[in-house]
Amino acid sequence: MAVTIAALAERAPEARIALTPPVISALARAGAAVIVEANAGAAAGFVDEDYVAAGASIATRANAIAAADVVACVRRPDAATLAALRAGQVVLGLLDVWDNPAELTAVADRGVSVLSFDSLPRQISRAQTMDVLSSQASIAGYRAAIVAAETYGRYFPMMVTAAGTAKPATVLVLGAGVAGLQAIATARRLGARVTGYDVRPDAREEVTSLGAAFLATAVDAVGEGGYARELTEHEAAQQRAELAAAIASFDVIIATAKVPGRTPPLLVTADTVAAMRRGSVIVDLAASSLGGNVAGSVPDAVTTTDAGVTIIGAGELAAQMAPAASDAFARNVTAVVASLIVDGALVVDPTDDVIGSMLTTAPAKEESRS
Amino acid sequence: MAVTIAALAERAPEARIALTPPVISALARAGAAVIVEANAGAAAGFVDEDYVAAGASIATRANAIAAADVVACVRRPDAATLAALRAGQVVLGLLDVWDNPAELTAVADRGVSVLSFDSLPRQISRAQTMDVLSSQASIAGYRAAIVAAETYGRYFPMMVTAAGTAKPATVLVLGAGVAGLQAIATARRLGARVTGYDVRPDAREEVTSLGAAFLATAVDAVGEGGYARELTEHEAAQQRAELAAAIASFDVIIATAKVPGRTPPLLVTADTVAAMRRGSVIVDLAASSLGGNVAGSVPDAVTTTDAGVTIIGAGELAAQMAPAASDAFARNVTAVVASLIVDGALVVDPTDDVIGSMLTTAPAKEESRS
Repeated sequence: MAVTIAALAERAPEARIALTPPVISALARAGAAVIVEANAGAAAGFVDEDYVAAGASIATRANAIAAADVVACVRRPDAATLAALRAGQVVLGLLDVWDNPAELTAVADRGVSVLSFDSLPRQISRAQTMDVLSSQASIAGYRAAIVAAETYGRYFPMMVTAAGTAKPATVLVLGAGVAGLQAIATARRLGARVTGYDVRPDAREEVTSLGAAFLATAVDAVGEGGYARELTEHEAAQQRAELAAAIASFDVIIATAKVPGRTPPLLVTADTVAAMRRGSVIVDLAASSLGGNVAGSVPDAVTTTDAGVTIIGAGELAAQMAPAASDAFARNVTAVVASLIVDGALVVDPTDDVIGSMLTTAPAKEESRS
Repeated sequence: MAVTIAALAERAPEARIALTPPVISALARAGAAVIVEANAGAAAGFVDEDYVAAGASIATRANAIAAADVVACVRRPDAATLAALRAGQVVLGLLDVWDNPAELTAVADRGVSVLSFDSLPRQISRAQTMDVLSSQASIAGYRAAIVAAETYGRYFPMMVTAAGTAKPATVLVLGAGVAGLQAIATARRLGARVTGYDVRPDAREEVTSLGAAFLATAVDAVGEGGYARELTEHEAAQQRAELAAAIASFDVIIATAKVPGRTPPLLVTADTVAAMRRGSVIVDLAASSLGGNVAGSVPDAVTTTDAGVTIIGAGELAAQMAPAASDAFARNVTAVVASLIVDGALVVDPTDDVIGSMLTTAPAKEESRS
């Protein structure tokens, strides 16, 4: 009997969905049947008929949960859904393990395998096909450059016309992780003059290989898992001062510095914003309820200062490209699910280096279900 | 005594302004002093201090008109402003000469030189630095591609990732004038797979030189002034049918087919829209109160069909990039003004091939003022 994977509708405003029609045949080959909650894909542009045509079944939420071996979701489900999960089931998603961890631990203690992409060991090569943080960051970085171009009142490329020449826009990307590198690449595609910055000195080569300049500061900080370590208060102040001196000369700032589970560093102070030219645009991908990289950024809102600088609080840009973001998310989900199916049965192995890291609470013994 | 040029505030929602700080020094070299109506540049991102710093004066609207030899505007001014103009003055702008021409003729009959960019002879090489239709179309075409990318729920470029490959977006640009070519170039920069279409067969070379494919139809129509001639009803029906067959396979349509003073041709019917895939995006640069290239496009509005196709009515895209659009407009105004100043005096010569064409009603004799 096939393992059954259910994709549930997310809570608005989340527009993504964890499984999309293109992955259903791959899941079938891996030994998994798919059930999708009715209308769950609509906000991402996938209608029920598309799922059915690809081989999935449509069901009510309750029936989908009841039938599922694995419940796949984008965000942590609501309390009622978590309460409906039973021992032996797997729940898989971007569960935000740092937010109210007790709620997840309680689910795990009931014998549910709670697997979150937040804690995927991203540097293990086998995990890269499962890396939701990376696939979604890539979309967010691409979209950050597009949104910046849409907001900026001038051309990104240099334009030579009969009546004169328009200079290319100058773009500074703060943070050269997946999102930052994709923002750099996209702004470069559009013809902007791009500079990248990262506190990890190793990022220089990646930035310059995309044809961008690298902004160096005296502060450097290599951390664990490929992320920057947290700076001391003294280092952070020095970093802000060095950045402030550079930022005023740019037309567009795209800030992408964030580490899962940590408060984003403040890189652009109110004084630095005030020093920017009228018409400048800042996109803050770190904007969140905990703050962002930019003073004055408001999550999911666009604000313009009295001096004419526009600040876009853009912590959830991937969700704004829900069709592509869902497809990528679904491929990552599929890779995890495929790794959980052994000889046609679902096996959650807490000693597996990838799966074990994703488990919120490692169960005491190996669970299996066929 | 210097010739005086005044730039007036436009009526909202027009955000552009006819003169910007960067052209003021060039106008001074040509022998012209600039007066700007107070706060007139604010919507385009130019504050009064910027104009003053560049050498212009700030005045009330009434004082600016009173002092001006040339009144420069983006759109046709309101009736009160036209009534305030006096014999010997020049009014210069995109006056929309096909809309209520009697209002402009009445002004010309009072001895005002009414010069409109609408009727610039665009194929005369000396006129190219004055070509507002071209400079604004270039911005509109660039922006059309950016807006399409911002609206489309997937990547424009091909993306190869650990978890799989995302196909590039397929973009069809209808109309390969200045706007269409710039839309093609911008969509190409972003990595989309682009096809261009124009009813003028000569456009093929321009389209393919940008790296796009050319969509050929059996209908061709070369007209005057570089524009397409109007098709017969039979030809237009054939064209729509041929386009319909092609359009359904594209993710994004950017429609740019319009000729000043003519109703835009309907290129994309409701049936054609209905045949497009869910998630497809159409940007209609011809959208206007007279209709557009696309059935169902609403000027300055975004609509999504029940089948999930988004149609953006975008007849005024240049105005949405008011800083760049105003700078370009101002350079075009400056070129006209410079050509009107002879030995320090303003000379409107109706026998001049460029100026004569721009004049709404050619005065009986040469006017001059010093």
